[in-house]
Amino acid sequence: MERLWAVSTTQSVSYSIKRTRRCLDLDNRDLANAVGTDNRRTLVVVDSMVMQLYGPRIAAYFDRYAANWTVLPVEASERRKNDETTGRILREFDRFGLSRRRDAVVAIGGGVLTDLVGFAASLYRRGVPYLRVPTTLLGMVDASVGVKTGINFNGRKNRLGTYFPASQTIVDPEFLATLPDRQIANGMAEVIKIALVKDSGLFDSVDRDYSTARGFATDATTSGPIIDAAITAILEELEHNLWEANLRRLADFGHTFSPGFELRAQPLLYHGEAVAIDIALTCLVARNRALIDEATFSRIVSVLTRIGLPISHGCITDEILQAGLADSVLHRDGAQNIPLLTRIGAAVFAQDISPKELVAAAESLRSLHSRLIGAWMP
Amino acid sequence: MERLWAVSTTQSVSYSIKRTRRCLDLDNRDLANAVGTDNRRTLVVVDSMVMQLYGPRIAAYFDRYAANWTVLPVEASERRKNDETTGRILREFDRFGLSRRRDAVVAIGGGVLTDLVGFAASLYRRGVPYLRVPTTLLGMVDASVGVKTGINFNGRKNRLGTYFPASQTIVDPEFLATLPDRQIANGMAEVIKIALVKDSGLFDSVDRDYSTARGFATDATTSGPIIDAAITAILEELEHNLWEANLRRLADFGHTFSPGFELRAQPLLYHGEAVAIDIALTCLVARNRALIDEATFSRIVSVLTRIGLPISHGCITDEILQAGLADSVLHRDGAQNIPLLTRIGAAVFAQDISPKELVAAAESLRSLHSRLIGAWMP
Ligand SMILES: NC(=O)c1ccc[n+]([C@@H]2O[C@H](COP(=O)([O-])OP(=O)(O)OC[C@H]3O[C@@H](n4cnc5c(N)ncnc54)[C@H](O)[C@@H]3O)[C@@H](O)[C@H]2O)c1
Ligand SMILES: NC(=O)c1ccc[n+]([C@@H]2O[C@H](COP(=O)([O-])OP(=O)(O)OC[C@H]3O[C@@H](n4cnc5c(N)ncnc54)[C@H](O)[C@@H]3O)[C@@H](O)[C@H]2O)c1
Repeated sequence: MERLWAVSTTQSVSYSIKRTRRCLDLDNRDLANAVGTDNRRTLVVVDSMVMQLYGPRIAAYFDRYAANWTVLPVEASERRKNDETTGRILREFDRFGLSRRRDAVVAIGGGVLTDLVGFAASLYRRGVPYLRVPTTLLGMVDASVGVKTGINFNGRKNRLGTYFPASQTIVDPEFLATLPDRQIANGMAEVIKIALVKDSGLFDSVDRDYSTARGFATDATTSGPIIDAAITAILEELEHNLWEANLRRLADFGHTFSPGFELRAQPLLYHGEAVAIDIALTCLVARNRALIDEATFSRIVSVLTRIGLPISHGCITDEILQAGLADSVLHRDGAQNIPLLTRIGAAVFAQDISPKELVAAAESLRSLHSRLIGAWMP
Repeated sequence: MERLWAVSTTQSVSYSIKRTRRCLDLDNRDLANAVGTDNRRTLVVVDSMVMQLYGPRIAAYFDRYAANWTVLPVEASERRKNDETTGRILREFDRFGLSRRRDAVVAIGGGVLTDLVGFAASLYRRGVPYLRVPTTLLGMVDASVGVKTGINFNGRKNRLGTYFPASQTIVDPEFLATLPDRQIANGMAEVIKIALVKDSGLFDSVDRDYSTARGFATDATTSGPIIDAAITAILEELEHNLWEANLRRLADFGHTFSPGFELRAQPLLYHGEAVAIDIALTCLVARNRALIDEATFSRIVSVLTRIGLPISHGCITDEILQAGLADSVLHRDGAQNIPLLTRIGAAVFAQDISPKELVAAAESLRSLHSRLIGAWMP
């Protein structure tokens, strides 16, 4: 005598992203509304660099709008995006006496900070609500758009994580004014990524309107439409696959070999820089397979280098390429699923890229890179 | 100029529980089917005590049915149900080279082991599938029925966790044969819990058919119907509230003060023992409020004590009761939501239990306890 119980149900998930201007100005109520007026207490977790730059404005804003708030600065570097920092944040949640749903957690910072706080929020009491305010370009157009949270573990990028939406995200491009040029370029890599696989118009805008990092960071008429278009494109791609039931993801473009580059390069490569190299590499594979033509490939390389992104790096060995391939296959459950462009704005998924093909492409990129940029490496 | 993106979607969740007999016998294919024949590799995480008792049978079973399997014994005590043990399991996942979805993780053990493995599985690569085989009564009727995973943190019971269903759970009451009597009583506390708030017929069965722990553990004609009825009742309660959107939960009966007892009592109280004391305490509050009559209260106390469960404990101070109340209010988001019986099989939610009321009830229980059981404390 046996017995079987089958449970079948659905969970509704909804969240929103608001692009605003000057969210810390006292007459901008977007953040205050997101926090809510009837919440009990507010814990504001801030990237310590952002704290240095915006601390007084953050304090003035929450003093005005939040009954009872506490700030927690966190040094949020890629190297500290780990279980130890997560544990520290979680102990602070405990010390604050965070309740299940009536309190607000606000994460203000780059992708490292929002990934860390999102991860901690998803675990504490099996999930407490949180809000995100991305302060880097990469955060605005990528890390703060979807529902993935995560930390590095055991020497692996984002090896641990959860799917846990921030109830609301406030995007304010004014934060870019203080962001170093190299970080602007870093974020542009994710804009290029989504433009190349989904939105040729966005790629045209970048090619036409982006001249310098400073110009982009301080001129809202340039950055605004590009940021909005990037969020729209990436959301369109993520929305129907939030939990990654489908492992053929266009958003994985540029993200097959980049985790390896990011963890191995000395001095460190930024996330977007590693992504740019991966984009250049897989675009060269696509050109070698005649999926795209030489002119398209050259245009992509020229936009990347104009932005100040690398297309090769001294850390790239045959072994790192093979390890990247093997690890991505594990992560994509036995399939390569590597997006290869067929034109600007569209891609297919390759399943049969060989180590030899990769090594050859990496070799050509190396000489192209030194021809174009000389000895410079980020 | 602002812009708003709203994402709204649903996630489908389904899982099943199968109650079988002798799941490690080579002619029982239930576990083999749950693991699947086309999976790449299987990692079997086993409570080290269960490993001692069932290791050879586990090995013979997986040798027969799994192409490529590895066993990982874990010492899974309440004291080790923490982030350190979680980290150890996660590093083993990495070492094993666990892929995203094609490999199988099987958790075999009590509630501590299945909570730990479920928690680790929910974080690794943002979630890898896993199966549960509960080997304690508490696991069969409670810990392995729902979707909650968790670990203790910072001195708090189950402070961290996720909602993450095991794809399948295999319940086999034969494992009870080796379980110590005190662990049988421990699991019966959760049976009594769900019976009291939802199923008076189940309470009648326990009252009528349960005579000794040994009898229950070895006689399938008694344990079978009681286990099946408990799973049915608890699933009925959980199914429509898997993510606890509603914080008025009948399953919280007996779970308001018990976490405090469980962490503070020396020597340790088991989970179900702490639950039994909480049940007795809140039932006495219900009787003092005339929600239930004296006869009902006495019958509940007599069933609990006959099973060998405590109704009071030396660790209970006014302070521990007040801390339990305060912490539950945080966890239930500002409301007490304490289930109080109105009869056997039904309960309401109290919002206004005062510390004074609790202290008085605890006081009466103390004398009742010593009258009934003498000096015995678990
Ligand atoms: N969750 C996701 O879906 C997702 C997607 C893409 C990337 N990511 C993650 O995002 C991380 C990278 O994020 P990032 O590029 O924002 O890096 P980051 O968070 O490290 O920020 C970059 C640097 O800029 C500083 N900073 C932040 N805001 C500033 C400002 N307004 N002015 C001046 N300095 C400022 C930070 O202190 C930091 O030193 C990676 O860990 C990556 O894995 C996550
Ligand atoms: N996830 C949930 O929804 C949920 C619900 C209720 C309880 N729990 C958790 O479950 C835990 C308690 O579980 P438990 O009572 O099973 O304790 P446990 O896992 O510690 O097991 C009790 C003891 O029995 C041993 N054991 C296990 N199977 C055996 C067998 N067949 N024969 C002999 N010995 C065996 C174990 O080694 C252990 O020493 C608590 O941590 C509690 O928080 C979780």
